[in-house]
Amino acid sequence: RMLRRVLCTMLFMGTLPLLAEMSQGHISVVLLGATGDLAKKYLWQGLFQLYIDQVSSGHSFTFHGAALTALEPGQKLMFDVLKKLACPPDEPPNRCAVLKDQFLKLSQYHQLKTAENYTVLNREIEMLLHQEGLKEAGRIFYFSVPPFAYTEIARHINSSCRPPPGAWLRVVLEKPFGHDLESAQQLAAELMSFFREEEMYRVDHYLGKQAVAHILPFRDQNQQFLDPIWNRHHVERVEIVLKETVDAKGRTSFYEQYGVIRDVLQNHLTEALMFLTMELPANVSRAEEVLQCKLQALQSLRGLEKHSAVLGQYQAYASHVQEELQKGQDYVSTTPTFAGVLVHNDNLRWEGVPFLLASGKALDERVGYVRVLFKNRAYCTQSEALRDAGHSQCKAKQIIFYIGHGALNSPAVLVSRNLFRPVMPKSSWREVVGQPDLRIFGQPLSDYYVYSPVKERDAYSVLISNIYHGRKDFFITTENLLASWAFWTPLLNSISHQPPRLYPGGVENQHLLDFEMVSGELAFTAAEPVELLNPDRSMPSDYKTIQSQFRQRPLVSAWSEVLISQLASDVEKAANRAVAHSGQFHLALSGGSSPVALFQRLARHHYAFPWRHTHIWLVDERCVPLTDPESNFFSLHNHLLQNVRVPYFNVHPMPVHLNRRLCVEEDGGAELYAKEITALVANASFDLVLLGLGSDGHTASLFPNSENGLEGAQAVVLTESPVKPHQRMSLSLALINKARQVFILVVGKGKHDITTQISRVGHEPRKWPISGVSPSSGQLVWYVDYEALLG
Amino acid sequence: RMLRRVLCTMLFMGTLPLLAEMSQGHISVVLLGATGDLAKKYLWQGLFQLYIDQVSSGHSFTFHGAALTALEPGQKLMFDVLKKLACPPDEPPNRCAVLKDQFLKLSQYHQLKTAENYTVLNREIEMLLHQEGLKEAGRIFYFSVPPFAYTEIARHINSSCRPPPGAWLRVVLEKPFGHDLESAQQLAAELMSFFREEEMYRVDHYLGKQAVAHILPFRDQNQQFLDPIWNRHHVERVEIVLKETVDAKGRTSFYEQYGVIRDVLQNHLTEALMFLTMELPANVSRAEEVLQCKLQALQSLRGLEKHSAVLGQYQAYASHVQEELQKGQDYVSTTPTFAGVLVHNDNLRWEGVPFLLASGKALDERVGYVRVLFKNRAYCTQSEALRDAGHSQCKAKQIIFYIGHGALNSPAVLVSRNLFRPVMPKSSWREVVGQPDLRIFGQPLSDYYVYSPVKERDAYSVLISNIYHGRKDFFITTENLLASWAFWTPLLNSISHQPPRLYPGGVENQHLLDFEMVSGELAFTAAEPVELLNPDRSMPSDYKTIQSQFRQRPLVSAWSEVLISQLASDVEKAANRAVAHSGQFHLALSGGSSPVALFQRLARHHYAFPWRHTHIWLVDERCVPLTDPESNFFSLHNHLLQNVRVPYFNVHPMPVHLNRRLCVEEDGGAELYAKEITALVANASFDLVLLGLGSDGHTASLFPNSENGLEGAQAVVLTESPVKPHQRMSLSLALINKARQVFILVVGKGKHDITTQISRVGHEPRKWPISGVSPSSGQLVWYVDYEALLG
Repeated sequence: RMLRRVLCTMLFMGTLPLLAEMSQGHISVVLLGATGDLAKKYLWQGLFQLYIDQVSSGHSFTFHGAALTALEPGQKLMFDVLKKLACPPDEPPNRCAVLKDQFLKLSQYHQLKTAENYTVLNREIEMLLHQEGLKEAGRIFYFSVPPFAYTEIARHINSSCRPPPGAWLRVVLEKPFGHDLESAQQLAAELMSFFREEEMYRVDHYLGKQAVAHILPFRDQNQQFLDPIWNRHHVERVEIVLKETVDAKGRTSFYEQYGVIRDVLQNHLTEALMFLTMELPANVSRAEEVLQCKLQALQSLRGLEKHSAVLGQYQAYASHVQEELQKGQDYVSTTPTFAGVLVHNDNLRWEGVPFLLASGKALDERVGYVRVLFKNRAYCTQSEALRDAGHSQCKAKQIIFYIGHGALNSPAVLVSRNLFRPVMPKSSWREVVGQPDLRIFGQPLSDYYVYSPVKERDAYSVLISNIYHGRKDFFITTENLLASWAFWTPLLNSISHQPPRLYPGGVENQHLLDFEMVSGELAFTAAEPVELLNPDRSMPSDYKTIQSQFRQRPLVSAWSEVLISQLASDVEKAANRAVAHSGQFHLALSGGSSPVALFQRLARHHYAFPWRHTHIWLVDERCVPLTDPESNFFSLHNHLLQNVRVPYFNVHPMPVHLNRRLCVEEDGGAELYAKEITALVANASFDLVLLGLGSDGHTASLFPNSENGLEGAQAVVLTESPVKPHQRMSLSLALINKARQVFILVVGKGKHDITTQISRVGHEPRKWPISGVSPSSGQLVWYVDYEALLG
Repeated sequence: RMLRRVLCTMLFMGTLPLLAEMSQGHISVVLLGATGDLAKKYLWQGLFQLYIDQVSSGHSFTFHGAALTALEPGQKLMFDVLKKLACPPDEPPNRCAVLKDQFLKLSQYHQLKTAENYTVLNREIEMLLHQEGLKEAGRIFYFSVPPFAYTEIARHINSSCRPPPGAWLRVVLEKPFGHDLESAQQLAAELMSFFREEEMYRVDHYLGKQAVAHILPFRDQNQQFLDPIWNRHHVERVEIVLKETVDAKGRTSFYEQYGVIRDVLQNHLTEALMFLTMELPANVSRAEEVLQCKLQALQSLRGLEKHSAVLGQYQAYASHVQEELQKGQDYVSTTPTFAGVLVHNDNLRWEGVPFLLASGKALDERVGYVRVLFKNRAYCTQSEALRDAGHSQCKAKQIIFYIGHGALNSPAVLVSRNLFRPVMPKSSWREVVGQPDLRIFGQPLSDYYVYSPVKERDAYSVLISNIYHGRKDFFITTENLLASWAFWTPLLNSISHQPPRLYPGGVENQHLLDFEMVSGELAFTAAEPVELLNPDRSMPSDYKTIQSQFRQRPLVSAWSEVLISQLASDVEKAANRAVAHSGQFHLALSGGSSPVALFQRLARHHYAFPWRHTHIWLVDERCVPLTDPESNFFSLHNHLLQNVRVPYFNVHPMPVHLNRRLCVEEDGGAELYAKEITALVANASFDLVLLGLGSDGHTASLFPNSENGLEGAQAVVLTESPVKPHQRMSLSLALINKARQVFILVVGKGKHDITTQISRVGHEPRKWPISGVSPSSGQLVWYVDYEALLG
């Protein structure tokens, strides 16, 4: 009855369809958590907007608010909200009043607590439709409830509230979608036992922000300008930023478990990042293509490490946590309320371009933006003072998707005037001028073409409309969600105990949270002021190396980072000495994980290293193809060779893969390598051999009790490792001991026991192969870090 | 007598040495061209300054002005100049007046025209010394004469005016030192037949400019700050600029032969560039070390190409030339009066950093500077408006050596305050403040630490003092001179007929001379306005490629440079297609000289080339070691591989050197290569094979009537070449014809006959191996330049 009345009103208002024939079917919207904060603030308004927009679409609607509250009080609570619904400013007041009246009549409250409740709801929907003689188009269930309630509700909907065949089901889910990869997988698996992928609409409300939602259309519509410049050759950096002035007060029970990375970076900022970096699909309005390209972009992100992030916590956070969570004075929270993260994308388009993601609470201003800064490749011959202020190519070139708040206080798209005049859809974005003196990202506003939305729309209205239209590209698929967690979880794990830098909050933060990129890592630019320092953080003798003796040979010891930098310098010195002496430097390198830091250090900090005159040899190799990730050479290649310029001819991988098979004795790989050494290295005496130490006392691939290599004169040998891959090729002790210099690098707590052990043994190479390293006329130096040395 | 009188005065003035004992010896300075412009303007003043500075050094001096003019008028001319010598502002007027009087008395004019004149001069010097009982320390001959007079004068000095053994000879030479590499070599050879290298002081007066002269000391004294940042990872770009407001009017007889590159870039700006880029010698005050490092820096510059430069000519220049050189209306000068040049240094420190050199006449301002702009690696969390104006890390970071004139109107060294406070020698540089509102390089002066010289000194005073002190590092050695010409000459040759862009001059130039870097080349940013265009400049079909047919296959033809750039683009397209399709691109490349230009083009201009996914194969190889300069692989390595990042595993040189011997059949190299191809390339079908054409019709290393490779199914074969080295390894026609695409590149007049020949023959591979290239299902495209096609 109610519905019929409304349908009549609809007809009365100007359209004249034939009822049953014109009807596109009926849509039931069920809002779970109908009296909660989000519903009050955004969702009902969004549903009302949907109704206003779609009242003439041919669909009919009913709206069902639901909560745990009993019928009477729930009903009152809900209608109190509905009565306050605002009419959109662009809507004629008369029409809106009528529509609001209808919307209220089409809305109903339900208590949804027990299985019975869901069955009843389903029956009511069916009856209503039957009475009105309407075909069912679909049902939307909007989960505005805490995540712990998801499974229960999902089970009920799946078992009792599915629409009949031919009508669709859409369940709308609000974050958080898990806490890390594992919990997200678990939650996803549960949901997938109730709903099909296409039925689930995971909300990230950033995708409803007009500036974010326009990134992809902008790229599509401005392809002619962007194609040549949307790549690493032209983009200097990208910043994706959401700054808040509020703190976490009152929300710490949630916040303390999540922190800023889970709250903002893993979802909102990552989504914006994807829109920027993804390859443009042939058709940007085809959801499937968009989602596929987005997934690929997520998968091409380079893995994050501990030092990819800088973390902060506003000073008052500790007391907020103590108050709200009843924690004691000794409770120390390491939850970051500020984070800056450096993200790299390893595909050809973006390789090397820094993407800086930053977000925090208790900052100096509220603002969100995505800023693409282009490289300045121009030189302006006319002096600054005399330059035409117009389109100078020497001014910064930027494209900014201004999400909202901040100086502009509205969503906007800004394009530097010396870049291009963008194509913008006239129906939804208009060019604006004004506030020419306002400086934004270092330039006056007049330096940009500025566009703002013709009609500013709340993110939830946009999203609810997109749910209605089935635009899945505005939502997060299971695959994309898990890919995002797979990307963020390693960082979250590695920083979980890292104390964040404390900051006072607001304008007082000054430069305390400024950060910069240093050799692919992030670091705060300013030293942490002492008064804010957590007392138990400093490490004594942090930057010193100890010079001493170990096994009657020189020992260099320090914390590992300092040790590696000392070792790298010593390697460079040896190289320069050798090149000065003979024009060449023959360097034999070990595999394993310890030298990786050395390789990276050499590649990133030793620009004057004489690579052109260096020959690289392998100390040992696993019998796998060179392109196998297990291969020592592969690791050497990835961490060193591909970053420096060693001539091709000077690189000498071990021939473990002759005749397309691995380390077969009769292929004579070991002999071949020995011959190559004899042919190129004077007296087969390497200038420098870098060795490691295994926890069983092995070095190179010479294991305890090995039949080959520990004794005898053979230069290169095949050996067996107790661990996989078993087959190895290795330089022999005889050859190693011919070297002019041998450096042994031992790093990490895991090596403490063996380090202690071998400090006490004599020359027992069969038992402790390392003890057989004893250059006959060369120098031996031990590089042992404090953890290995002192435990 | 004269001298004795002066010496007495000297003693009288305060020092009390015992004449003969204390004397460091006598120095005779001979200024050739004593009445010329340079002498009048700078040199006499510089000599007077030398006298003032060194009068108490223990050396005694006489000054001999010389010219072609007869004694009487010459004397008068010269003393008119000397009388006007200024006293330095920091000199007490009394002392200066006395010293000036002495200086005049110690100066003498000589006519130097004939051999006789030189003998007389020598005799006079000897007599004077004899009379005064003084030991001779040395003689300085300053050539302030046109270069055509050099040889004649040098001969006379060498034969008649050398000082006796134990005393030194220093001849000071003013530019131009040649016009290109050849003429410079010739001039150098002539001079070297008269003087030893250590006797020659070639002046580049920029080395006497205080800001330029301080670059190296600055780098040395600030090593602790600069070491980590003075490299490609931190430097964004470097600008070395000399702008003039004057034009060439009145000097076109000189200028028309030289132009701005020879006049300013080859010498002044290159010298500044060297001081910036050279490795820091262990001891910066040891001339030898400095000169050696400078030479190395010069030698590591990447070769320039036509498009490394943008050229301009101020509009009135044409009429100046016509008037001054009596040229007709039809005379078109292509002499550039403005040039911007992009220079790259290929060593590890600077690889990829753009060095922009620019200079011109008739510009908007007179200024000279060297500007090092660092990359901005910081993100500032606080909003701009609220940031402390102080040391924000987000402001530009620059170091500027301000040579003079311009807004500062004085030499200066500027260092951004957010970089570091530099160490400056207090005795010669003082910190200055003031004009905080003056903006310099985009920032207020208050953003910099600013230093200016305690005593501003003219470049020639500095240089004359350095000649006296024998500081050869302030002068240009023969080796350095020739290295600089070797660097600049190819560019000068390639642009000699290129019409420069016309510019109106002064402030009117607006953006007309702004330029930018595009794929490693320079281009003006603004299109050339039509009204300035010289009507007879356009070259028909200069930038067109002809698309046609050759041997029933597609033909691309153009002038070789355009052809190569088209070919490089087509190779990149093929690569992207293959990578998109299969994730890999298998490219087989030929040896020989034609592909070198292609390799260079690919390395320098195709940054987005998917090298990481490219496999490089050889089409053919000479049976020599891979490191032999004759090796195809060696050439490929030098011109392509060492400049791009192809993974080691993806590089597949032909195994011509197995078991340390060359192409022995039983070593099975050909079979091994065939197996490798089969294992890695799907269906042994290369994505792209690049072939050349020999003048006998051979392609790959398949020669006419070859027993192997022309017929049969064998994939890789050993062949015999009619020319050395005879032994070759080559892909067979059978394998080549399996490729998806084959490009044949034919370039140069020398290929015209064979091109004509094979355009007429059918399928006759035994006679014309190239005619057997006929991919069974792939595409064949001919790239033939106009010279090969049209003769």
